[in-house]
Amino acid sequence: MDVEKIYFEDIVEGMEISGPVRYEVTKDEIVAFAARWDPRPFHLDEEAAASSVFGGLAACSAHIFSIFSWFAARGGVRIEVLSALGFDGMRMQRPVLAGDVLSCTTKFIDKRESQSRANGGIARYHRTLVNQHGQVACSLTVASIVEKRPRPE
Amino acid sequence: MDVEKIYFEDIVEGMEISGPVRYEVTKDEIVAFAARWDPRPFHLDEEAAASSVFGGLAACSAHIFSIFSWFAARGGVRIEVLSALGFDGMRMQRPVLAGDVLSCTTKFIDKRESQSRANGGIARYHRTLVNQHGQVACSLTVASIVEKRPRPE
Repeated sequence: MDVEKIYFEDIVEGMEISGPVRYEVTKDEIVAFAARWDPRPFHLDEEAAASSVFGGLAACSAHIFSIFSWFAARGGVRIEVLSALGFDGMRMQRPVLAGDVLSCTTKFIDKRESQSRANGGIARYHRTLVNQHGQVACSLTVASIVEKRPRPE
Repeated sequence: MDVEKIYFEDIVEGMEISGPVRYEVTKDEIVAFAARWDPRPFHLDEEAAASSVFGGLAACSAHIFSIFSWFAARGGVRIEVLSALGFDGMRMQRPVLAGDVLSCTTKFIDKRESQSRANGGIARYHRTLVNQHGQVACSLTVASIVEKRPRPE
């Protein structure tokens, strides 16, 4: 699939991007991810999960964070990030449950020149994961150094 | 290894916990994690990484976030979390490079009763990953619902 690359020059405050790509979260992946990184009963065992806050087998926070990264790299529209600077306001609004199909939207907040890097500038953007019911599962704000468009050689 | 469990009642503002456990970040794990979740050249290829902002093969943000979760579950001291609510102020202060050996400290900011849950209360805590040189690699603030100590049956 063609990837649309977004460089610093392309960023306009308030601009929203969302690719057509969806991400299906499987039970096996929830369990495998949690077994490695966050082995708590409600991420590993359906019975424990049913009686938990989540009401069902739920992806752990690190898994959800990783799905944001997946969309950033593979979602069809790619911001050319040189380095992440920080993440704020990550809110677990609804559980991500086995079988959920997620989409991701990104809305640019602002951008400014970097004091230290000539080949990139700093952008902030708000990202949202939405499930198949149209409900926001998680959102967060990212600050990154975004590459400036390379000049033709 | 014995795990020290921290319930809501155990939390005191300003209390700091850090287990003796260390986490070594290998080159293979950096590449495998990034290949799945954040396939950018500076996480996958040593040559591309050497000329990047990071100066060497660097763990992606989702990998670093996951290492925080690993410490939370396996670091020897475990806060009995019922559900994460949010994450703020995640700052990528230094790259996590292949061969780094990380430790993790947690400092409680505050706690309060939950309006909606009798079996848990809300706590906020600041977590820091420190590398083998004593440098802070990453820090973030977590808000979670922490379980109250179960009463004896």
